[in-house]
Amino acid sequence: MSEAAGAAAPVPVVAVDAMGGDRAPAEIVAGALAAADRLDVEILLAGPPDVLARHLPGGRPPAGVTLLPAAEVVAMDDEPAAAIRTKKDASVVRCAEAVRDGRADAMVGAGNTGATMAAALLRMGRIRGVQRPAIAVPLPVPGTGRTTLLLDAGATVDPEPEWLVQWARLGRELARLRFGIAEPTVGLLSNGEEPGKGDELRKRAAALLGEVKGFAGNVEGRDLLRGTTDVVVTDGFTGNVALKALEGALAGLAGLVLGVVGEPGAPWAAHAAALQSALLAAAAPLLPDNTGGAVLAGVDGVCVISHGSSTAEAIVNAVRVARDGVTARTVERLAEAVRGAG
Amino acid sequence: MSEAAGAAAPVPVVAVDAMGGDRAPAEIVAGALAAADRLDVEILLAGPPDVLARHLPGGRPPAGVTLLPAAEVVAMDDEPAAAIRTKKDASVVRCAEAVRDGRADAMVGAGNTGATMAAALLRMGRIRGVQRPAIAVPLPVPGTGRTTLLLDAGATVDPEPEWLVQWARLGRELARLRFGIAEPTVGLLSNGEEPGKGDELRKRAAALLGEVKGFAGNVEGRDLLRGTTDVVVTDGFTGNVALKALEGALAGLAGLVLGVVGEPGAPWAAHAAALQSALLAAAAPLLPDNTGGAVLAGVDGVCVISHGSSTAEAIVNAVRVARDGVTARTVERLAEAVRGAG
Repeated sequence: MSEAAGAAAPVPVVAVDAMGGDRAPAEIVAGALAAADRLDVEILLAGPPDVLARHLPGGRPPAGVTLLPAAEVVAMDDEPAAAIRTKKDASVVRCAEAVRDGRADAMVGAGNTGATMAAALLRMGRIRGVQRPAIAVPLPVPGTGRTTLLLDAGATVDPEPEWLVQWARLGRELARLRFGIAEPTVGLLSNGEEPGKGDELRKRAAALLGEVKGFAGNVEGRDLLRGTTDVVVTDGFTGNVALKALEGALAGLAGLVLGVVGEPGAPWAAHAAALQSALLAAAAPLLPDNTGGAVLAGVDGVCVISHGSSTAEAIVNAVRVARDGVTARTVERLAEAVRGAG
Repeated sequence: MSEAAGAAAPVPVVAVDAMGGDRAPAEIVAGALAAADRLDVEILLAGPPDVLARHLPGGRPPAGVTLLPAAEVVAMDDEPAAAIRTKKDASVVRCAEAVRDGRADAMVGAGNTGATMAAALLRMGRIRGVQRPAIAVPLPVPGTGRTTLLLDAGATVDPEPEWLVQWARLGRELARLRFGIAEPTVGLLSNGEEPGKGDELRKRAAALLGEVKGFAGNVEGRDLLRGTTDVVVTDGFTGNVALKALEGALAGLAGLVLGVVGEPGAPWAAHAAALQSALLAAAAPLLPDNTGGAVLAGVDGVCVISHGSSTAEAIVNAVRVARDGVTARTVERLAEAVRGAG
């Protein structure tokens, strides 16, 4: 572990679900170890000790890393609620309990999103005044270095309109803390920017969102990567569909572009490699591995959800977001934001 | 007008709303004239005759084009229902009436989508067995030449689950007629592919969609450009958000790519122009101007909706889709598809 920054600030402890994710445990463990080495954090690494040992140098956790034994694992395709109910010794459950009990300050999971959410919600509870949590996903605005926070990206389908107001307040505070935006603007994702557009949920939510400072009215799907507002609120169903539509479009177009660049015998063939590197560098800020993970906003603890195919680098970035969430007293600040107006 | 194909087949008459679209009337008129010249169609060109005259060579319609006088215009930001109610002599209303009255076989509009839809619905009525219409948008699958039909892309928010079943049947028949797919597959857009994922609407719709031939279960946002199924059904709110999210992502990434390609002094600078042409050619099938326009499925007449920023070329393609819809007896076939099972 590297030296703690500053004088006597306590080092945040981040519980990492080593067993969650398409590339678990190898990439998750590698990322957790790298985080312990490069960031000012201590890591609680949750999983079956014998499995974890196979991925640790010398079979033992290095300095800054402590094992958090858990005999069970929630699979990517387990039904989330049932899995959390029946697998009480699952690694993701142990992470959430560690936060609840104060042995960890935050948790990071890249596994079954529903199960990670359920574990956090059931073990940590909710922030007072928040009916349901929302996944706040950072969407990079291409070529600008700016970010829009989209919430809910999949935690809560069929919300009440009042919950979107709570999420707008959570989103503004997260945009302040995470991206340093003093007065974040908020858009309501709808099927047209004109006032009055939308389904029943949107019409009722728009009327209530007027009381949220920074509310800028409706935005459309094409605004998500334009940075039109700093925060975009929607229900978890629409948010999830939109997020995956964006991912699919970027993947589809990337394939098309790299196909043209790599075309054998093309006039630019001698420069194809350099061009490809430059394109990947330009697109790097858009890749989920680099955006740092989503925050499960509204639970009474810091919970960072990294994407299912997280690499070690994605885990390092997620741990960084978790650490910053702890040092910024995110949960207290979110609680204040929901209590207060604005 | 060019020669009609075959022996004595009647030439389809397509009513074009010359006043609808961001580039109306100039681009729309140019497109309508080009369509009359290049396709086997006759055009009814709707708008104020004095305005149209300014965009016609010699101030008069050429062979194959007839003016359809209409004194009023629905603006892009007019409230659709109110506009159709109060502007009874609007060009888009006259187009729909021409189809209703048999003076035209189809209509094409690139204006206010809600107003085009309302005009078609109120003047033409619905196909028996269809409660509400759906906009069926063709989504090209990058690099494959294949297409997925997404419906509803914005006609009907807050649908009943039964309507999604009707749209699935309409979508399958359209995929057959328009893309020659013998047994099209259908996906239900949801927030996860596992059965049981989704909000209340999706859960109820999934149970009903089992009776539709070719139903393949849930698909996700990232499947929209992957061609996972030939048809994707969803409510008009989600469909509109997803469609615009795709458009926004493609625009954002295109800007990023062209920026890298055009970087001054880059090693590939000498080939930047050739590379840019190749990239644009590869991406051309994805551009809304070239996909041919959306079909308003479920109304009792052929109504093609072209995107708001349609160029003349987009109008030619939309007229082609309208013409093919007429010659394929689309409305009768859709009515049969809704009546029958499968």
